[in-house]
Amino acid sequence: MPVVTVLQGPRDVQLKRDLISKITDAFVDAYGIPADTVQVWFNEVPADSWGAAGKLIADTPK
Amino acid sequence: MPVVTVLQGPRDVQLKRDLISKITDAFVDAYGIPADTVQVWFNEVPADSWGAAGKLIADTPK
Amino acid sequence: MPVVTVLQGPRDVQLKRDLISKITDAFVDAYGIPADTVQVWFNEVPADSWGAAGKLIADTPK
Amino acid sequence: MPVVTVLQGPRDVQLKRDLISKITDAFVDAYGIPADTVQVWFNEVPADSWGAAGKLIADTPK
Amino acid sequence: MPVVTVLQGPRDVQLKRDLISKITDAFVDAYGIPADTVQVWFNEVPADSWGAAGKLIADTPK
Amino acid sequence: MPVVTVLQGPRDVQLKRDLISKITDAFVDAYGIPADTVQVWFNEVPADSWGAAGKLIADTPK
Repeated sequence: MPVVTVLQGPRDVQLKRDLISKITDAFVDAYGIPADTVQVWFNEVPADSWGAAGKLIADTPK
Repeated sequence: MPVVTVLQGPRDVQLKRDLISKITDAFVDAYGIPADTVQVWFNEVPADSWGAAGKLIADTPK
Repeated sequence: MPVVTVLQGPRDVQLKRDLISKITDAFVDAYGIPADTVQVWFNEVPADSWGAAGKLIADTPK
Repeated sequence: MPVVTVLQGPRDVQLKRDLISKITDAFVDAYGIPADTVQVWFNEVPADSWGAAGKLIADTPK
Repeated sequence: MPVVTVLQGPRDVQLKRDLISKITDAFVDAYGIPADTVQVWFNEVPADSWGAAGKLIADTPK
Repeated sequence: MPVVTVLQGPRDVQLKRDLISKITDAFVDAYGIPADTVQVWFNEVPADSWGAAGKLIADTPK
């Protein structure tokens, strides 16, 4: 019963719909477990609340 | 100083008030530690951002 | 389908056996959900890998 | 720069090698982001330290 | 490529801007790794969704 | 009462001792909170259990 957490910036629901399907397929293919044993949770964090290299994404030039 | 995280869909505050009290009691009873050493964090995720069996909860028939 | 994570120092299996039962009861009582929808994961961290007040537990006088 | 965490029981390295490749492909396909922006962390928890329905996996009949 | 998560109540962006810079410096100084290998994610939880001693912060006298 | 989690490969205890001190100072300086309200947990993951770009660190040429 694996539990997957995805830390990311906010994404459109259609992208999350596509990704949860593909991640679940990855478990079914790699581990041979039933799809309904796989949970996926998106933990979406706004651009003023995460970053790298010591800077928030909100402050990072694109 | 255990730290408890609860990943769940959004719930009413009264339910969370009740649960944090009961989870803390569980630690006091099982571990014999003081209640004030137990932290509980609810990580609430909307229905378009988690799911099982490859589908978002928002897309899952009830 | 809540997912509970417990960050703690290592504990005896009998204590974890007792706690998982009591935490699950807390969800059943507070939320009125079936016990088999509740997952609990213990994330045990040794004393040289966590701390408070700027000091590792391994370095903290009892 | 999504960060994926997989909570699971211990698995053979070959299975993890296969899964990290497939999960990363899922992000590349669904989000159109470069593979090297995707991190995956396996958080493996022994059978005496997680469970469902109020019981540790170590105590659950197969 | 360490990934840092900060569970906290909501804070002003200026405070997070300052903290992410200082936490990243801590890694550069202590580990001797480049700043751009350090990610920091703030997981902000409202006062009605976390607490200690069995009480939500929203219900705790200041 | 912020809770900091550091996902990383295994590091020597002396490095963790140094880092927990410096991270805690970062909170005291940036937020003006007492050091003893800051918890830090290192979640150390072996090289065969995490990676980027679709490959485990254990399989990645240095």
